[in-house]
Amino acid sequence: MQRKVKITDAFLRKYPEQVVIVTTKSKYNKANAMAVGWVCIVSSEPWMFALGIDSKALTYKLVKTNKEFVVSYPSEFMAKETLFVGTHHGKETEDKLKKCGLATAKASIVNAPLLRDAVANFECKLHTIYQPGDCPIIIGTIVAAHVNKNKAIKRLLTVGPKYKLSGVITE
Amino acid sequence: MQRKVKITDAFLRKYPEQVVIVTTKSKYNKANAMAVGWVCIVSSEPWMFALGIDSKALTYKLVKTNKEFVVSYPSEFMAKETLFVGTHHGKETEDKLKKCGLATAKASIVNAPLLRDAVANFECKLHTIYQPGDCPIIIGTIVAAHVNKNKAIKRLLTVGPKYKLSGVITE
Repeated sequence: MQRKVKITDAFLRKYPEQVVIVTTKSKYNKANAMAVGWVCIVSSEPWMFALGIDSKALTYKLVKTNKEFVVSYPSEFMAKETLFVGTHHGKETEDKLKKCGLATAKASIVNAPLLRDAVANFECKLHTIYQPGDCPIIIGTIVAAHVNKNKAIKRLLTVGPKYKLSGVITE
Repeated sequence: MQRKVKITDAFLRKYPEQVVIVTTKSKYNKANAMAVGWVCIVSSEPWMFALGIDSKALTYKLVKTNKEFVVSYPSEFMAKETLFVGTHHGKETEDKLKKCGLATAKASIVNAPLLRDAVANFECKLHTIYQPGDCPIIIGTIVAAHVNKNKAIKRLLTVGPKYKLSGVITE
C-alpha cells in the first residue's frame, strides 16, 4: 500500500543507487576526480553517458574547458576514496587523487586518467551540456573502455543516505 | 589493473543497475507499463527524472500524447512482473498490467496509475524530450510522490545480463 509523502522523503527509498568517479585534467596537467550519483547511459550508438555535475564543481569547469573526461565504476574496495572525492572540492584540495591514494593509469585517447583499481573505465569526449532543471547535465560520448583484469570485483553502490557506500551481495 | 576492451564488453560490468517501471494511460484510459533501465535524477529544484525510452515503445507515444506518467521503483518481490513489462510490447499485449497481475492505485495528480506494491511512486509531468544519441530521453518533472507503507521493502535491481533481476543485500 502507498502513502503520499514529500518528494524528498520518497527519495530516501532510492537506494541502492549507482555511483561513478569522473576524472579530468587541468591545463597544468593536474588530475582531478569527483564522485557522481546522477548518472545513466543515454545512447548505445554511439554509447553515451549523462552525468549531473554542479556548475560550481571544478570537474564541471575542466570538462567544459578540456572536453574530455573518464567515467569510472569504483569497486567495492574503493568506498573510502569515493567518499573522499565526493566530499572534497577540487579547488580547495590540492591533488585529490594523490591525497586519497587513488592509483591512476594512462588513458588510450583522452587526457584524463583511468582509475587503476576500478571495475571499469570509460573514456569520454564531451558531446553537449544540457540543463533541464537546476543542474547541468554533461553528455559524453564514450570513445574507449577498459575493465579490471579481476572479473570477480564488484561495483560500489550508494546503499543509504549520508554517502553510505558498500558493495552489495545479490540474492 | 585495467585491460582495454570493446565498450559493449565493458558494460557487462555495469551491474547492479537500477530499474524502474513507467506507467501511462491511453486516450481510452487503458493503463500501460514498461521497464526502464536508463534512468536518473537530473534536477532537485524542481525534482526531475531522465528516462531513456525507445521511440518505438508504446510508452513513448503515450508520454508524448498525455504528457503525464508515473515512475515506480519495483520492489524485490516484483521481479516477475518487471520482467514481463520489460519484455512485452504494449501494442501487441492487451492490458499488460492486468496480464502480469500488477496491482495499481490512483495517482493524486496525473492520469497514470501508481503501482500499489512498489517501493515508491513518482507522479511526473513531461518537461521535454531531448535526444543526444540514438534514444529519446524523456525529462519529467515530479509533481507528487508516494512510498510503500512497509519501510523495510527493498528496491529491485538488475544484477546481471539478460534481465537478471533481484533484490540485493547490503554488506
